[in-house]
Amino acid sequence: MASAPSITTVNRSIDWNGEAIVAIDQTRLPAEERLLLIRDVPTLAEAIKSLRIRGAPALGVAGALGIALAARQAQSDGTDVDAAVQQASTMLAATRPTAVNLRWGIDQARQALAGGPHAVLQSAVSLLEADVRANRALAHRGADWLDALPARREGPLRVLTHCNTGALATVELGTALGVIHVAHSRGAVKEVLATETRPLLQGARLTSWELQRLRIPYRLVADAAAPSLIARGMVDIAIVGADRIAANGDVANKIGTYPLALASRRAGVPFLVVAPESTVDRAISNGKDIPIEERPEAEVLGFGSLRIAPAGAHALNPAFDVTPAELITAIITDQRVIENG
Amino acid sequence: MASAPSITTVNRSIDWNGEAIVAIDQTRLPAEERLLLIRDVPTLAEAIKSLRIRGAPALGVAGALGIALAARQAQSDGTDVDAAVQQASTMLAATRPTAVNLRWGIDQARQALAGGPHAVLQSAVSLLEADVRANRALAHRGADWLDALPARREGPLRVLTHCNTGALATVELGTALGVIHVAHSRGAVKEVLATETRPLLQGARLTSWELQRLRIPYRLVADAAAPSLIARGMVDIAIVGADRIAANGDVANKIGTYPLALASRRAGVPFLVVAPESTVDRAISNGKDIPIEERPEAEVLGFGSLRIAPAGAHALNPAFDVTPAELITAIITDQRVIENG
Repeated sequence: MASAPSITTVNRSIDWNGEAIVAIDQTRLPAEERLLLIRDVPTLAEAIKSLRIRGAPALGVAGALGIALAARQAQSDGTDVDAAVQQASTMLAATRPTAVNLRWGIDQARQALAGGPHAVLQSAVSLLEADVRANRALAHRGADWLDALPARREGPLRVLTHCNTGALATVELGTALGVIHVAHSRGAVKEVLATETRPLLQGARLTSWELQRLRIPYRLVADAAAPSLIARGMVDIAIVGADRIAANGDVANKIGTYPLALASRRAGVPFLVVAPESTVDRAISNGKDIPIEERPEAEVLGFGSLRIAPAGAHALNPAFDVTPAELITAIITDQRVIENG
Repeated sequence: MASAPSITTVNRSIDWNGEAIVAIDQTRLPAEERLLLIRDVPTLAEAIKSLRIRGAPALGVAGALGIALAARQAQSDGTDVDAAVQQASTMLAATRPTAVNLRWGIDQARQALAGGPHAVLQSAVSLLEADVRANRALAHRGADWLDALPARREGPLRVLTHCNTGALATVELGTALGVIHVAHSRGAVKEVLATETRPLLQGARLTSWELQRLRIPYRLVADAAAPSLIARGMVDIAIVGADRIAANGDVANKIGTYPLALASRRAGVPFLVVAPESTVDRAISNGKDIPIEERPEAEVLGFGSLRIAPAGAHALNPAFDVTPAELITAIITDQRVIENG
């Protein structure tokens, strides 16, 4: 377990450089590769709320590092470390109510508080390194699972994915896109169909940027087009991430996941969820109890920097939906495969 | 039956002013209300291909008026009218391969060709007036159908609709949105949830513009959000239009219709299709045989002049999907109600 600060590389979407959090500003991609240096909790909270840092596993790491920042700052200022950590926890947890990993990361770092600010930082950095290991484990387990699919006997797979679940959503490699990355390196992926993922276009901006760098053949599709492409026999497997998994296996993920699961079930296409074990929230018995983050109307009323809807228009903007466990073929974590039906 | 040229008003999205086709340029809405004056077939073909004129019923009228333009022009030039009409038919029919109404309108006008160019124009103008009457008939029939819904006993309905099926998609009033318009005037509509309808955002640009003018309460939603809103019990009825209806009742409509039907079926929400009888194509036995128009990749890679995806990205852009008849509760035309199951 590496407890020393790691070296920042462009391959890590979030890292600790010994003094500050270093993260790629994901709102600037693909036009600009801009690094953020974050030294205080309010700046981190803004970066999370505005999705400069995003992706369930990356949020866990960000939460832990945020607690470390708060503890270090209080120690250096000579103020109450416990109070500073409490305040930071509240501020950070409020930024994204659906993401269980964020709160999990905060809690993990706080458990080291008895050892002082340095122990908190060590815990946060350990969590970062553990995320790297978890993604390697789940990506290989997922690629093994794909190799065992009946459709795989006929050749490389046509894979549908949603939103961004790649290196940008984690520290390195990714979850669903990590599986696709490893499977492609084994010759098991023919093409990826990537949904654009309105309203914030993480598919069009981020997944396409990653797939292009990885030289994996892909085409973007409008979110609403994907279900009929599944129905038309153009998809062998759908692979998505998760923001929170209830105890019964219901999965909260980026808005638009549920219709992909409905269409996959009707077409007999396997529907795979890939997420680290930290995404499982045993305190939530089923998906109906998962709180769904409502994001600003402006994200739907426009497109990028363009305003589309007429003045006076309103929008409803749930960031996540819930897919019932019965529509999910399997959930793959860094520790296990949970098969349904 | 009015055969005299009708007076252009802003309430008609397409009309004949005695000399030219007058149409609202729908690509400029909602920012600008700009009228097009179209005097020749190539200009009309460009307007249809680039969706300045769109909507299945409006395309039928446009096709008929295009044939009238071609016949008049040939007569005035002293060239062969039959050859000009043949050439115009080919050019216009190629603009939108899925829309059966377009070809139907072309064929209707051509049947009057034996009577000369004036008879062709009279036929096209009759078709325009017939569209107005058809929409009034289907809008009232649809509103009656809504009044008979069990959910209606508990109060006004929360209605989901997709794309634009209003006055802008027809000559006046609209199909699915025409039903909503009439039902709202009866106090039967509480709120409309309107999908933005990527890639061309007809919901965000056109449906919202119409609903705002009609003072019908509405909120825009991302296409991918609608299925989970149905699952969460936030929708009493889904109402959509159609671009082509196969003999078995399968419906081709704007991409993204199919996932709404899947989610409605699972949630037990009625799914209603509203279209003029001319949308029914008895020559096509089932939806699998309906040709699906593939539109330019650039529509998915960005919006308007704004590019989102990285350079080198590709996209797949089917304009329509097919909803199987078994997922449709009823189809309402100007002549009948076709109930399933």
